[in-house]
Amino acid sequence: MTTTALINKLALIGAGLIGGSIARAARASGAARTIVATARSPQSRRRVMELGFADRVTDTNIEAVKDADLVIVSIPVGASGAVAKEIGPHLKTGAILSDVGSVKGSVVRDMAPFVPPGVHFIPAHPVAGTENSGPDSGFAELFVNRWCILTPVPGTDPAAVETLKAFWEKLGANVETMTPEHHDLVLAITSHLPHLIAYTIVGTADELGEVTESEVLKFSAGGFRDFTRIAASDPTMWRDVFLHNKEAVLEMLGTFNEDLAKLTRAIRRGDGEALFAHFTRTRAIRRGIVTIGQDSAAPDFGRPHPALPTARIARPYAVDGD
Amino acid sequence: MTTTALINKLALIGAGLIGGSIARAARASGAARTIVATARSPQSRRRVMELGFADRVTDTNIEAVKDADLVIVSIPVGASGAVAKEIGPHLKTGAILSDVGSVKGSVVRDMAPFVPPGVHFIPAHPVAGTENSGPDSGFAELFVNRWCILTPVPGTDPAAVETLKAFWEKLGANVETMTPEHHDLVLAITSHLPHLIAYTIVGTADELGEVTESEVLKFSAGGFRDFTRIAASDPTMWRDVFLHNKEAVLEMLGTFNEDLAKLTRAIRRGDGEALFAHFTRTRAIRRGIVTIGQDSAAPDFGRPHPALPTARIARPYAVDGD
Repeated sequence: MTTTALINKLALIGAGLIGGSIARAARASGAARTIVATARSPQSRRRVMELGFADRVTDTNIEAVKDADLVIVSIPVGASGAVAKEIGPHLKTGAILSDVGSVKGSVVRDMAPFVPPGVHFIPAHPVAGTENSGPDSGFAELFVNRWCILTPVPGTDPAAVETLKAFWEKLGANVETMTPEHHDLVLAITSHLPHLIAYTIVGTADELGEVTESEVLKFSAGGFRDFTRIAASDPTMWRDVFLHNKEAVLEMLGTFNEDLAKLTRAIRRGDGEALFAHFTRTRAIRRGIVTIGQDSAAPDFGRPHPALPTARIARPYAVDGD
Repeated sequence: MTTTALINKLALIGAGLIGGSIARAARASGAARTIVATARSPQSRRRVMELGFADRVTDTNIEAVKDADLVIVSIPVGASGAVAKEIGPHLKTGAILSDVGSVKGSVVRDMAPFVPPGVHFIPAHPVAGTENSGPDSGFAELFVNRWCILTPVPGTDPAAVETLKAFWEKLGANVETMTPEHHDLVLAITSHLPHLIAYTIVGTADELGEVTESEVLKFSAGGFRDFTRIAASDPTMWRDVFLHNKEAVLEMLGTFNEDLAKLTRAIRRGDGEALFAHFTRTRAIRRGIVTIGQDSAAPDFGRPHPALPTARIARPYAVDGD
């Protein structure tokens, strides 16, 4: 059965949420025959060994990529260049080198110079994740029905792109191809700006003199708690995203600020019609996301609701004639 | 068993998400013996009859409140004054009149003048909800472990406050008391500003020329989709919230804008240390909310993750000796 594996040897540089999920999904789907992983800290390497989602954990990146057919770098984007420089000379001819970074322009700029001839460099970004990080946080189902964006540079061997596409599809993902520049613009609005806004408002709530932190936490079910999930994401990863996709983020932020000023003016002037029209329009977008399966249709994201503590056997909800 | 009911007759003006959930929870917990509901449109009244979560559905609010021991007005806050004026003369002496509005200062201002002597007016706000609305959207567990804030005006009969508190506790809620003014400040940051920001960014994404709507929807799992849930909330309710809690919302918005400007400057200057420090701090707030049980500890809010389509029986994640 393993003879049908797409990839003979998969090397994962970084085995946190994304790298660790790739390992689990590649194994569960049979997409790779052998999986070698590495992680920066000895503690993480030990934990990957304990979790056992890779066949081998190596001490160095150089050792991990040796003879690998597919190498996926899953680390904060700020470290991409240094890792490419380190592993470049040790990549096998014909190997595919890819990554999972949330920014693609800077990854191309930082990694491409170190890719030797004969190695297929295909940057990628699976648009999936959770607020957790580290080797324990991954799971095999993370990429199912999520999109993975490939941003191959011009002249890339189409057969190598097809192989990487087939790999991600085996992991359950849908695959789309676009330029690194367009990717960075799309992700600036669908991911980077939402994170920046969430990080901001959670910080704002934390600093108020008039409302205590205890009150913010207790009454967070009014909406605030929805923002705290993404504001709990890995700080190193997100620092690097904002430093490396600066222009696109600042552009989207400019548009957001204009729109916020418009709604603020409507509130100040008591323009109920403008508010109602805006709020009606945004409702339709949620429906679109649910319709194409990118979010749960269950209220509250499907959050569990505990049962009534004092509930007796409910009588049927029938009009009883009074 | 029904002789132990706290409330003999409960009248619900408005039977949408909140009113309908109160009815279901009051019945399931035995907090009320008889439940009478009304809704503005004939369609909603018919639907309440079909769903059967009330014992009776009346055509008029006046008929509903007749002989009621507890009347809860569950409608957009902008309509509070008109309803108080309508039902005021028909309230029973000794009855408790309450509401569920997300703003309390304006509710006190608009309703109090129409409350006859001998009726206990105790404004309330259960901090719970989902993005859905209408009679079908409610459920009995909505208030379990959520907070209900009471804002009694000075001089309110303590026994009546105790009864309303006991009622909400029967529905599974925790109860806290504060002034209407403080409530409006606390909710401005924990609920109103998050909604305004979510409504804004979802609108921004919808209007971009460079990124298509299809791309926004497809790649929304990068963070954007978390914002769309609350931006799908009832437009009438939220228009009224912003019109009636204008000052507190504008104040919080001012602080938010200052904080956003600070983070924007850090991005523009490439100040990675400032970004990292901020992102680390916000992570702790999420942990606080999960610790006190106001959100799910499960990653992604506990959203369901579909299984790998091509999954074979997974072998155990054990290091297999390579």
